[in-house]
Amino acid sequence: MKIIQDGNVTSAKGFLAAGVKAGIKASGNYDMALIYSETPAVAAGAFTRNAVRAAPVMLSELHVKSDNVQAIIVNSGNANACTGDEGYRNAENMCKLVAGRLDLAQDAVLVASTGIIGVQLPMEKINVGIGHVVDKLSQDGTIATKAIMTTDLTEKNIAVELEIQGKTVTIGGIAKGSGMIHPNMGTMLGFITTDIAIEKSLLQRIFLESVDESYNMVSVDGDVSTNDTAIILANGLAGNDVITSEKDEGYDAFVKALRFVNQTLAKKIAEDGEGATKLIETNVFGAKTVEDARKVAKSVIGSSLVKTAIFGGDANWGRILCAVGYSSADLIVNKIEIFVKGGDAKIQIVANGAGIAFDEALLAQIFSAKQVEIEIYLHNGEAVATAWGCDLSYDYVKINADYRT
Amino acid sequence: MKIIQDGNVTSAKGFLAAGVKAGIKASGNYDMALIYSETPAVAAGAFTRNAVRAAPVMLSELHVKSDNVQAIIVNSGNANACTGDEGYRNAENMCKLVAGRLDLAQDAVLVASTGIIGVQLPMEKINVGIGHVVDKLSQDGTIATKAIMTTDLTEKNIAVELEIQGKTVTIGGIAKGSGMIHPNMGTMLGFITTDIAIEKSLLQRIFLESVDESYNMVSVDGDVSTNDTAIILANGLAGNDVITSEKDEGYDAFVKALRFVNQTLAKKIAEDGEGATKLIETNVFGAKTVEDARKVAKSVIGSSLVKTAIFGGDANWGRILCAVGYSSADLIVNKIEIFVKGGDAKIQIVANGAGIAFDEALLAQIFSAKQVEIEIYLHNGEAVATAWGCDLSYDYVKINADYRT
Repeated sequence: MKIIQDGNVTSAKGFLAAGVKAGIKASGNYDMALIYSETPAVAAGAFTRNAVRAAPVMLSELHVKSDNVQAIIVNSGNANACTGDEGYRNAENMCKLVAGRLDLAQDAVLVASTGIIGVQLPMEKINVGIGHVVDKLSQDGTIATKAIMTTDLTEKNIAVELEIQGKTVTIGGIAKGSGMIHPNMGTMLGFITTDIAIEKSLLQRIFLESVDESYNMVSVDGDVSTNDTAIILANGLAGNDVITSEKDEGYDAFVKALRFVNQTLAKKIAEDGEGATKLIETNVFGAKTVEDARKVAKSVIGSSLVKTAIFGGDANWGRILCAVGYSSADLIVNKIEIFVKGGDAKIQIVANGAGIAFDEALLAQIFSAKQVEIEIYLHNGEAVATAWGCDLSYDYVKINADYRT
Repeated sequence: MKIIQDGNVTSAKGFLAAGVKAGIKASGNYDMALIYSETPAVAAGAFTRNAVRAAPVMLSELHVKSDNVQAIIVNSGNANACTGDEGYRNAENMCKLVAGRLDLAQDAVLVASTGIIGVQLPMEKINVGIGHVVDKLSQDGTIATKAIMTTDLTEKNIAVELEIQGKTVTIGGIAKGSGMIHPNMGTMLGFITTDIAIEKSLLQRIFLESVDESYNMVSVDGDVSTNDTAIILANGLAGNDVITSEKDEGYDAFVKALRFVNQTLAKKIAEDGEGATKLIETNVFGAKTVEDARKVAKSVIGSSLVKTAIFGGDANWGRILCAVGYSSADLIVNKIEIFVKGGDAKIQIVANGAGIAFDEALLAQIFSAKQVEIEIYLHNGEAVATAWGCDLSYDYVKINADYRT
């Protein structure tokens, strides 16, 4: 597997993209993106588990079932959430407008939105923007990458290529995150394109498993958005024999590469959490079940007290053990061991479920690194999990206390 | 029912208290409190649901079963949590030292601790402090109120008296909260004393129900402490006939008064959350079950995005509906109505599960009040719940980024 320099959703064969400034964002920044496959693709999607679902989520959940998906239209600046029937019709109209311009069936178009909640989309601007974004489709995906961002500070993209059955298969993706990122996909959007030939139901299973190991293991602030959406399109242009089962040649390599792509984007989301100054990775070992391992990893990564301690470089390890304790996982407390890593240093801070003597200065130095890793050994089974998050800083409060102005 | 001006744990007949500076806190502030009943009392307690339980929690859970509890020894500045066998022996020694000084059985003494996690108690200082605090026992409970505080900015105390069977019954309490306060009691300590005569198992049931409607409905930051403890002592000196069933005269009045005492302390905890600038109360109506009502109320009160929006006076109502959505309660989204109240103003912001037009300036004014109320009508049943929280400010981050220094 090879990483493609500056790769994104147009790296795989047959995919085009574009981004425009449609005037949805008050800032005047890029706010509309289109991803397009020149040939029909099989699609799979994972959507928010929030009971309050934005209109584009409800609609894309229907359209993703189509056997011939070819486009994803995305706007930032307005989430089209909590907008009732009018919002749903607007989401339908977005698909219809794109389908008309590209001569596709309406359900060949998926839609995603992110931004402010509870305000109707400015449909005249959307209409004009769709005309422009279709005209601008090209093999350059960089503007589309920018156009899906909201409070993100960095662009999030990755692409890899690998050989399957003697053919070059490419997987590329773009994502946006920042606030409201939490286990069960908090507003994060992720769009993956690949030219592998693969059977639809198999792709759906692989993709959901991969989402569970990547975007669903990221937490910025514990809130779960109304709009979270992750979609993959696979158009088959790599020319491999269609993969229909896990026994097929290339299945394992594809699963691994897809996981790498999703986890890379997930980490970029965590690293760029609102106000974040550092990336925190929590690795849990020896849990009774995978579910338990994930609960512990997410509980630690989601703790405001752990996050502020790491922001401040404060060696308050007890908060980590405390967060393990309230994860509701099955635990044998007096077996728990915890290590922390940062820069080149690694030290043990908890043994047998209790604090042990350690070099305070070294721990403070570890917590001051740009990337802090927490390793938790539960000694209660074989399951493992990893979660990613960020510290909680003054800037998180600043950004969110005054988001709309 | 009458509120006793400046009442606290010594308001009820036969209760004494004291507080001293034992040198546990680096600041030199009051850090040890003793509450004492001159006659044996029936006791009940509610303790943290964190799997990682501090030594004093484990020990008090045992001692609270005794039929003759007479004292509660409390220290602040050190939580005696994650301290292994040595920590447990130290908690036992605290009870033993108090029991020796007051000539009580060891299990007549309960113990609670709050403060830094993972550091052994300074037992020499504790030993000397216990000598002093026993000597200082008096009918003045004000120093005890101060001595249980950590990062609290305000003292939390209340007492009421009511008439039961022609006798005056008094209920008083003190509490500490501030950081780490969350549904399921995050470190909060609450100590209630009353002179009512009541049967032990009935008191335990009433007290747990009351805790579920008060301390367990408070959230500051979503973390659940290792040390949360709420204890009630009832010494019977009011002279009423022992209440043994809910049919007894005075039962309802006592339940109501106890709820008032616990909810008053819970609100004081929310109001004084670390960095809080205002109190937020969420009232949920029309839920399918009480559990659902509580889930929704806690989800909204716990949302970092709702909390920062209210801190900033930003009328971002969509975040409230979003937090209702991820509560995992049974919902009919298009029936949900939401109102907000602050100062003298009240307006509706959500109808039929979607935003409606409202006076933005008025909403911003409401969010700027010192006390903001959110009313959520689910129209899905009859159950109701109330939760209390606070906004999320820069100061929360400041306090917790640098807690130990």
